[in-house]
Amino acid sequence: MKQKKFILQESEIPTQWYNIQADMPNKPLPPLHPATRQPLGVDDLAHIFPRECCEQELNTKDAWIDIPEPVLEKYKYYRSTPLVRAYALEEALGTPAHIYFKNESVNPLGSHKINSALPQCYYAKQEGTTNVTTETGAGQWGAALSYAAKVFGLEAAVYQVKISMIQKPYRSSIMRTFGATVEGSPSMSTRAGKDIITKNPTHMGSLGTAISEAVELAMTTPGCKYTLGSVLNHVAIHQSIIGLEAEKQMAMAGEYPDTVIACFGGGSNFGGIAFPFMRHNILDGKTTEFIAAEPNSCPKLTRGKFDYDFGDEAGLTPLLPMYTLGHDFKPANIHAGGLRYHGAGMIVSQLIKDGLMHGVDIPQLETFEAGVLFARTEGIIPAPESSHAIAATIREALKCKETGEEKVILFNLSGHGLIDMTAYDQYINGDLMNYTLTDEDIAKNKIGV
Amino acid sequence: MKQKKFILQESEIPTQWYNIQADMPNKPLPPLHPATRQPLGVDDLAHIFPRECCEQELNTKDAWIDIPEPVLEKYKYYRSTPLVRAYALEEALGTPAHIYFKNESVNPLGSHKINSALPQCYYAKQEGTTNVTTETGAGQWGAALSYAAKVFGLEAAVYQVKISMIQKPYRSSIMRTFGATVEGSPSMSTRAGKDIITKNPTHMGSLGTAISEAVELAMTTPGCKYTLGSVLNHVAIHQSIIGLEAEKQMAMAGEYPDTVIACFGGGSNFGGIAFPFMRHNILDGKTTEFIAAEPNSCPKLTRGKFDYDFGDEAGLTPLLPMYTLGHDFKPANIHAGGLRYHGAGMIVSQLIKDGLMHGVDIPQLETFEAGVLFARTEGIIPAPESSHAIAATIREALKCKETGEEKVILFNLSGHGLIDMTAYDQYINGDLMNYTLTDEDIAKNKIGV
Repeated sequence: MKQKKFILQESEIPTQWYNIQADMPNKPLPPLHPATRQPLGVDDLAHIFPRECCEQELNTKDAWIDIPEPVLEKYKYYRSTPLVRAYALEEALGTPAHIYFKNESVNPLGSHKINSALPQCYYAKQEGTTNVTTETGAGQWGAALSYAAKVFGLEAAVYQVKISMIQKPYRSSIMRTFGATVEGSPSMSTRAGKDIITKNPTHMGSLGTAISEAVELAMTTPGCKYTLGSVLNHVAIHQSIIGLEAEKQMAMAGEYPDTVIACFGGGSNFGGIAFPFMRHNILDGKTTEFIAAEPNSCPKLTRGKFDYDFGDEAGLTPLLPMYTLGHDFKPANIHAGGLRYHGAGMIVSQLIKDGLMHGVDIPQLETFEAGVLFARTEGIIPAPESSHAIAATIREALKCKETGEEKVILFNLSGHGLIDMTAYDQYINGDLMNYTLTDEDIAKNKIGV
Repeated sequence: MKQKKFILQESEIPTQWYNIQADMPNKPLPPLHPATRQPLGVDDLAHIFPRECCEQELNTKDAWIDIPEPVLEKYKYYRSTPLVRAYALEEALGTPAHIYFKNESVNPLGSHKINSALPQCYYAKQEGTTNVTTETGAGQWGAALSYAAKVFGLEAAVYQVKISMIQKPYRSSIMRTFGATVEGSPSMSTRAGKDIITKNPTHMGSLGTAISEAVELAMTTPGCKYTLGSVLNHVAIHQSIIGLEAEKQMAMAGEYPDTVIACFGGGSNFGGIAFPFMRHNILDGKTTEFIAAEPNSCPKLTRGKFDYDFGDEAGLTPLLPMYTLGHDFKPANIHAGGLRYHGAGMIVSQLIKDGLMHGVDIPQLETFEAGVLFARTEGIIPAPESSHAIAATIREALKCKETGEEKVILFNLSGHGLIDMTAYDQYINGDLMNYTLTDEDIAKNKIGV
């Protein structure tokens, strides 16, 4: 019998994260203060983030960062996640490609987000913080943060994108079960939220609006720090545990990926699976192709502009150098709530400029078609976000069918879709649609100040 | 660092199931034909079940049964499930007990049910069946069967208990995503369903009503076989994979359980985790205590009568020797839909008579309190069914706190509760209640013909 999955012993789980900034041929441009346009230092960022996260954020020297022992202890409850060979999907596609997926859907709370929630809450607690706040799109990050806050004895307040609350009410329930306070964004509880609602009373929210509110809460609440589930460099560092494990697991399988694929919202799961392998492209002459799969209704990688822009809708964050659709871009109400974000992270933006990776954009219906095929073959109902990676994988696998190439494709199954069954219902009933953007739709949004 | 979890290599996964019938000091009484009251043979049962399942059902000779290779191949995608030491729960309770749980919630579809769905569909397919049908309470079994049917190329029709459809609509969506047809029971699509609705138009269904409908569909549809997710002996045989793995994993942890606990509906997950360990009580003089945790609103083990009774509400099944509350017992609408069944399996009923195990009954609010504590410590939101096992475990662990005993307690986390968030919402909002039964409530129901 052929081995189906590859799992590491607890003793083999990596004890350091990987920081690609140290190895990048061109470092990411620095974040800027919006008024002075001067590069920001750790002290500037540490007003809202845990200081250790800020150190990591701006660390372009150290390729390896020790995972604190209490975080590693918690990782060991669920890590390693399995690396699985998707034989049934391969067979259904009739492809000669070898398809592997890293199954982060078996994590507590159902996605990779817990990998960064634990260290962020750990650092916050160590620094004397009592409360943390954050935004959440699909709710995966908010759920993970709520649990991690409970683990380290912090109170958590989460701004959940309003459309996500409607599409995925169970996510709010999950956060409340872990003891968190949950508010729909835009809300009337912050200045930023009120301003957004005043300008647009039917605004259903986006990651950009929810970030504005959470940042404001952190800035105006003593003892409260802000945490972010994606976009920033320190999140990609924490998520590198995914790729570092996958590297060992691929070796157990006796293969090395020709192609690495992940869905793309802000870059947390993409960076997590991709950067440890990209390291070998940069340092060891490997030629793996890296593909970030984004929704065609939120196409910052394939149709965005590289420029300094705000990370949030209200303009409260530093200016970040990124591929962006404009910070007031209002994404369509697709079900992949975790991908409804206007900008890419600073690292990924630089890597795209340097040709080390590229994006593909995928219509909503293609992602659900891919998700249902994956469920019926591999038995796991994927998150709508993860289905973007599956759809991109299927495209690549079908190319191999054309050419006969036995490519090794690795994708990250970032989470399961059990909280997204309303979306699957709508798809099966034929009630879902694609959204396409004209160049005018994209050009009208504000980039930078 | 202490090891948190124990996982078997694929090569260590058991290749045989365990059949406790061969080792029982007193064999289960045979099922009887309702009219003749004569013991039923394989040929009688094979009209509605796959023949191989019937052979296993009545097999009191062979303690070990080979797992067919195609089933084992599918098992290897997700097995072994982890055995986890619940350090965080122990700490929260301040107990000296060592608490372990077998985490079946990471299985595809989120519960242990897939372990029997795969072989039942495999055998059905081997025997030329084209369609399978079944009932489902919480929806866990129906979801597993829908996937297993897809795996082996069968059509599936599922009767889901009506209250469960309302409480857990996502479960129906999951079954449909796997391509199954789903009908609420009691329905107007069968004679049995119509009769039940006529007598009681507001009947919200139970496992007993749904079994009646599925059995009728199988009996009246050529090429269609009935499958059952619990109660019957062959299901307990398939589920023994849980305990057989756990035995190896406990050995990896260097311990042996003093107490084994599982929730109890019909006995599938209880038998699965318990019987491989009970074997050593019977054969090797071990003295492990076995506790089946049932809802106090459906207390067949603790307050039922041992007698021949029907397995379904309409009286279409054979007469089964079991602890029962009467086949027309209408359980309260608790959220643990998988435990809303009037009778215990034949094996378990005999084991209780022989003093090899016992039941405890737990009120709904205690189960949710236990479930929330488990979530906040171990990071996994348990199914309301599994929370019965957790509540019983907490009772035992707190006894150890009193006595200072370092007992080793093992329970089966049969599934996650992500589809049950409505129930958690109600609990957190204070909208859930307990149900208690008077002796009159119990006495008024019909047992046998």
